[in-house]
Amino acid sequence: MATVHSTADSTALLTDHYELTMLEAALAAGTAGRRSVFELFPRRLPEGRRYGVVAGVGRALEAIDAFRFDSDTLAALDGVVDEPTLGWLADFRFSGDVWGYAEGELYFPHSPLLVVEASFAEAVLLETVLLSIYNHDSAVASAASRMTLAAGGRPCIEMGSRRTHEEAAVAAARAAYVAGFEATSNLAARHRYGVPSTGTSAHSFTLLHDTEEQAFRAQVASLGKGTTLLVDTYDVTEAVRLGVEVAGTSLGAVRLDSGDLGVLAVQVREQLDSLGAGTTRIIVTSDLDEHAIAALAAAPVDGYGVGTELVTGSGHPTCGFVYKLVAREGTDGELMSVAKKSVDKVSIGGRKYALRRRSTRGVAQAEVIGIGTAPVDDGDDRMLLTPLVRDGEIVGREPLSAARDRHAAARAELPLEAQSMAKGEAVIPTVFE
Amino acid sequence: MATVHSTADSTALLTDHYELTMLEAALAAGTAGRRSVFELFPRRLPEGRRYGVVAGVGRALEAIDAFRFDSDTLAALDGVVDEPTLGWLADFRFSGDVWGYAEGELYFPHSPLLVVEASFAEAVLLETVLLSIYNHDSAVASAASRMTLAAGGRPCIEMGSRRTHEEAAVAAARAAYVAGFEATSNLAARHRYGVPSTGTSAHSFTLLHDTEEQAFRAQVASLGKGTTLLVDTYDVTEAVRLGVEVAGTSLGAVRLDSGDLGVLAVQVREQLDSLGAGTTRIIVTSDLDEHAIAALAAAPVDGYGVGTELVTGSGHPTCGFVYKLVAREGTDGELMSVAKKSVDKVSIGGRKYALRRRSTRGVAQAEVIGIGTAPVDDGDDRMLLTPLVRDGEIVGREPLSAARDRHAAARAELPLEAQSMAKGEAVIPTVFE
Repeated sequence: MATVHSTADSTALLTDHYELTMLEAALAAGTAGRRSVFELFPRRLPEGRRYGVVAGVGRALEAIDAFRFDSDTLAALDGVVDEPTLGWLADFRFSGDVWGYAEGELYFPHSPLLVVEASFAEAVLLETVLLSIYNHDSAVASAASRMTLAAGGRPCIEMGSRRTHEEAAVAAARAAYVAGFEATSNLAARHRYGVPSTGTSAHSFTLLHDTEEQAFRAQVASLGKGTTLLVDTYDVTEAVRLGVEVAGTSLGAVRLDSGDLGVLAVQVREQLDSLGAGTTRIIVTSDLDEHAIAALAAAPVDGYGVGTELVTGSGHPTCGFVYKLVAREGTDGELMSVAKKSVDKVSIGGRKYALRRRSTRGVAQAEVIGIGTAPVDDGDDRMLLTPLVRDGEIVGREPLSAARDRHAAARAELPLEAQSMAKGEAVIPTVFE
Repeated sequence: MATVHSTADSTALLTDHYELTMLEAALAAGTAGRRSVFELFPRRLPEGRRYGVVAGVGRALEAIDAFRFDSDTLAALDGVVDEPTLGWLADFRFSGDVWGYAEGELYFPHSPLLVVEASFAEAVLLETVLLSIYNHDSAVASAASRMTLAAGGRPCIEMGSRRTHEEAAVAAARAAYVAGFEATSNLAARHRYGVPSTGTSAHSFTLLHDTEEQAFRAQVASLGKGTTLLVDTYDVTEAVRLGVEVAGTSLGAVRLDSGDLGVLAVQVREQLDSLGAGTTRIIVTSDLDEHAIAALAAAPVDGYGVGTELVTGSGHPTCGFVYKLVAREGTDGELMSVAKKSVDKVSIGGRKYALRRRSTRGVAQAEVIGIGTAPVDDGDDRMLLTPLVRDGEIVGREPLSAARDRHAAARAELPLEAQSMAKGEAVIPTVFE
């Protein structure tokens, strides 16, 4: 069997060149061992968004665990760093501590999503892969959450694999599930993460057969009456009639993939009802985003299949998270705050703590960030940083369903304005204490 | 060593659920073996773009080669398809033919980028993974090509790994290289594809040290005077002075990562020249896209580091390519054209051929597409479909440098208007013959 890439088991090369050369220079200078605190955080929300969703935590923990330099990986670094650095890397295993927002949790500007404490050498090496995972997965989850909000209780199905990188597709399906999607079309996401998978059929299946009737009979014979028939290859009205004739009134669903979905859904619902197929559902697909989903709220639609706009973050394909050194060991051995002074890219030095301030009725009121010390819980608040890695050991693993449940609960705490699809400010303010 | 995902060697699960259930239904109906022609093509260019760039061809060929169902993969499909289908998949190996545009080639609306001829069963299974690879890699290459055009002869360096999925990052670095980028920060792209890698240093490296001078001395001692010093952590003028003091007038380069890059570049160039460091280059980074690069054309900049906008396709993170059945075996055993009839998603049935019509002076004039038969070369034209897979054997492998050279040559054929960064129509028309 052909091997697509030979270092799939290690994540160590999913890394920027300069992380390794900084390591080399710091090792030579004797500063690589200085205790350091790095923070992964957003400077802002994507323009117009009311909140963001943290996703990728579980994947990031696996990436830390798999960040090892085996002989193949070391050989690949020949010419990048010197021999002493290669020797240091051969023994590398992350031995520090990581705290972070749990998966599915919401975020706001400056939320300290990850706090990594280790030697500079160990912490800097993780920068690229942690940012890659968080920036991608959280962008998808943040878009997905708006879609499931817009859909109300109706199920959303992730179908975007073909519109994004083949491995990003698997992570996107996972992130969408965290943010409330019911299922995915992606089989690798089913296999790796247990996300329920589902599917209908494509126009090619209808076109393969001599008649639409032959195609429908083949599908129903194989997949049962509960299947979803695609009814817009030729004429929708004729296809709906035919579908009920072939499968009977217990036909599972029909799928509409083109045209004015709102108008068609009304027509098809009336037709299905008149044929006695009152329980047959109507699934719509075709370049949906959260706005299109919201616009269909009054239409008799039973489910949404979402592709391109989900996997590309609905206009915001990356979160813009950064990973900054906020404190490091000084010459006195104590941690000291550090921060860059550039005008347009301000960072706030010092180790951060965070809680979600809530009213006595449990409504979120503010993202409270403490610098150097933890903010005080007023009694109804929720602490946001949890231990993820302790002395190099992964302690933050959890089932994906826990992240999904957490997301639903955290979103339910938000003020009502969070449900608006219109552009606006963050729904709660970020407050430094 | 931890395993990040257990089916990395097979691409068969990077697939939509419905490809498998369509297979099951077609096998049961006796139609799975019908000879079929699928075509992968764009309905249009991204809004405002003058041309697109084909990338991912080499990756797609490896994905076809690795599309096998080993025992782990088959076990993962338990509950998705029935036993007879699992039995059929166990022996699966693509045995058909594929023709396509070579990597680095340009594309226009309806260009037949891939033509896949095989049984329906074999061809339909490849749909999702082929689209994933082409849609992602071509989106990045299309953005990258505009950036290298805007940069004129100045080098562009790909630095976007942290802003996209960790595996998409590797493919993005590869695609950018095809479209003229000089190097990448991504070490896995160096390892897997031989893309040159490079790096400077981060603000964290400066902040780790007690003074900027200590940081600069550490970097120069380890990486040599030819290194690139990051000069905007505190005060740019002081850092440039210090950099030349530490490394001497043969300092390789300085990097500016914030502020008004055009103004700063002029100031820093004057300062470097006045210090006698006339050969020290100025590298700029910080949310660059093709428009920002073009705006810096008159500034004394020696290289561009591009991140977010490159890996997210500069506003167009996916190409919208589709994969459609255009012909299949009829009851008479002959291939017949087929096409969906939906109003807003028209496909054109029939097998396609394509050539780039050129003037006697070698300037591209039209994308000529033949339906059913190849268009006639007027003497100065270029045929665009090349054999990629023959009877299941990959015949289209080539070094990445060939794709890079092809891209440069194909872009040089375009009319001058292709160089405009303003929104416009495709720079040559698509003509059906």
